[in-house]
Amino acid sequence: MFNRCANVWRRRRVSGDRSSLTSHPKGPRVVPSSGSAFGWATGLAVGCLASAIYWRRHDEQSSSDNGEHKTDIPLLEQFGLPDAGLHTRQYAGHAVGFNQARRTPRWVAEHITSTKITGPANRKNMKFKADPSIQPHFSAFNEDYLGSGWSRGHMAPAANCKYSQDAMRETFFLSNIVPQNNENNSGFWNRLELYCRSLCSRFDDVWIISGPLNLPQKIDGKDCVHHYVIGKSDVAVPTHLFKVVLAGRSGGRSLCLGAFVVPNEPIGYTPKLTDFQVSLSELEYKTGISFFPKLRRGSWQDLCSVDGCQLMNFHDMECYIAERKLAATRSVHELDNIMQRLVEKGVEPHNGLLTKYKTKKEELLQRFQK
Amino acid sequence: MFNRCANVWRRRRVSGDRSSLTSHPKGPRVVPSSGSAFGWATGLAVGCLASAIYWRRHDEQSSSDNGEHKTDIPLLEQFGLPDAGLHTRQYAGHAVGFNQARRTPRWVAEHITSTKITGPANRKNMKFKADPSIQPHFSAFNEDYLGSGWSRGHMAPAANCKYSQDAMRETFFLSNIVPQNNENNSGFWNRLELYCRSLCSRFDDVWIISGPLNLPQKIDGKDCVHHYVIGKSDVAVPTHLFKVVLAGRSGGRSLCLGAFVVPNEPIGYTPKLTDFQVSLSELEYKTGISFFPKLRRGSWQDLCSVDGCQLMNFHDMECYIAERKLAATRSVHELDNIMQRLVEKGVEPHNGLLTKYKTKKEELLQRFQK
Repeated sequence: MFNRCANVWRRRRVSGDRSSLTSHPKGPRVVPSSGSAFGWATGLAVGCLASAIYWRRHDEQSSSDNGEHKTDIPLLEQFGLPDAGLHTRQYAGHAVGFNQARRTPRWVAEHITSTKITGPANRKNMKFKADPSIQPHFSAFNEDYLGSGWSRGHMAPAANCKYSQDAMRETFFLSNIVPQNNENNSGFWNRLELYCRSLCSRFDDVWIISGPLNLPQKIDGKDCVHHYVIGKSDVAVPTHLFKVVLAGRSGGRSLCLGAFVVPNEPIGYTPKLTDFQVSLSELEYKTGISFFPKLRRGSWQDLCSVDGCQLMNFHDMECYIAERKLAATRSVHELDNIMQRLVEKGVEPHNGLLTKYKTKKEELLQRFQK
Repeated sequence: MFNRCANVWRRRRVSGDRSSLTSHPKGPRVVPSSGSAFGWATGLAVGCLASAIYWRRHDEQSSSDNGEHKTDIPLLEQFGLPDAGLHTRQYAGHAVGFNQARRTPRWVAEHITSTKITGPANRKNMKFKADPSIQPHFSAFNEDYLGSGWSRGHMAPAANCKYSQDAMRETFFLSNIVPQNNENNSGFWNRLELYCRSLCSRFDDVWIISGPLNLPQKIDGKDCVHHYVIGKSDVAVPTHLFKVVLAGRSGGRSLCLGAFVVPNEPIGYTPKLTDFQVSLSELEYKTGISFFPKLRRGSWQDLCSVDGCQLMNFHDMECYIAERKLAATRSVHELDNIMQRLVEKGVEPHNGLLTKYKTKKEELLQRFQK
């Protein structure tokens, strides 16, 4: 298998360097992974201190190696150390740690409130596009997804940015997207996102971190990682998706935390969200990421014990989807079709939906009569 | 397959957080990826400037969204952004970009000279060990490798640090190690390392960057990445290894560059090093890494055109290995065995080796007679 792999590699060789590809285009606010300017300044101070300690330690060691050379770090860095584009990318409503090798986010962080998830912004005219801040050499493109059989799955959902059209627009950058099973995207994952938004009615602040995972599985008795890549950019298809949810009262009090790992496949209504819950420590182990590093371990309650982690059931979800379709419909015929399909699925519309249906129908009939 | 994968995940769930695991232990000098203190300070200045530009741009955008909220980045970062341990780790003789999810280096950078590769340091008493600067949660351990069928392959080779026992000792940290096919490690890769050292006799400075790769291959008509993980830490086994070699005359003049991607499998003597040569751009595309970012593209000659990229042939390599074994041998019987095995392999020892054999034999016989 590895021989075949090597052959694939050799076939794919491209001659000549594309010289323009290593310059860094302009983009969103770029900060080191510590995030804030304060963190950076602190990092500078800490770095100087650590450096001083290191050099002192190192001088002591060198003096014990009689006559040996001192390390020449500036010479090592004469042409720059390797740059894997590891800085944090800040957008209007979310932050991204991007993985240049996989052409997907490593993680996407958001902070939402009841105010942010309501407002006039909408998906109309929103288009997925390559992130202009990422070098084309390391970016995903719409062409990679189209015809691949995988949908473009938002990590920071568009609907979490109802307060700002700009913030919503930036969630359509492919730096916020992973190849996601279509049914998972519109089904279980969608219900998980709805649950996160519902938390805003019971908590003042909700922090969410989402991202892709490629987990090992046993194949022929050996632990293997096996995942697809799509398109010319070899965009990595995750085997799983993760979401860490931290919810708190005003000022970061009464914190509740839940971490979830969901397979990137159709899931349906039988499994509960708690079936996919993992400890934060286990998720950190699997992702190689420390989440909420400034949060004292053990300072939170279990989100699912406190808040239930109940996803919308089949009936309510079907009514919710019908309601959204209803709002966008412009013909009486299509309006009746939406309600008819509900009945065919055995879903009895609740009163709120029936009222909206009647109002919309009268509105359309009046418009038609004019 | 994904269902099985999900089941594996559920079975592996560990309850409870290991609270101590997110604190950062002391370790080597820690710097942001720009590397030097100068780079950091520059980064701070650039960051402030970029930040100012971003906020200006952002204010302009916000004013067009009448009455919309301004982004609250400090609130997003209240408990810290995700930390994937992406900083560069500096050691006495090399620098490492570590991959906490894979428990291997992402890349290892070295600068070698004819002086650095000669000296009294030796592998005696050198032991592989977990890197004390990496949190146990994200580290590889010797136990992961033992019994796995994969050898511990140095990225910065121990033999490149003959000038300093300390520098050599640090190459045995598992942060510098990947699971490598044993025959590849002692064979083709070893010959590539020997070639890199040989460059020091023809160039004043040699910069080398090495690391693991997991490349896609066609399986059932689809592009897949398939690789093993070993041990309790799920250390990722690379399908390939890469090495970028930059060689120059004094002061960074007359630069020559070669980039190579070698399958992590037995290779033997038939393939040439040039069979595995790739353009720097293609390697950057596959790794997601920009190499030598301060080096102007196109400012180098092709290493293999200038220097040949000839690896040691079978005869010379066998003599080289015999010579090393000979130096370490303490019995006449073993000494004769080494030479006998050469003859059995059809290798006629060159004069230099024969002289060393005779000298060593006399020395051992004299010691025995005493």
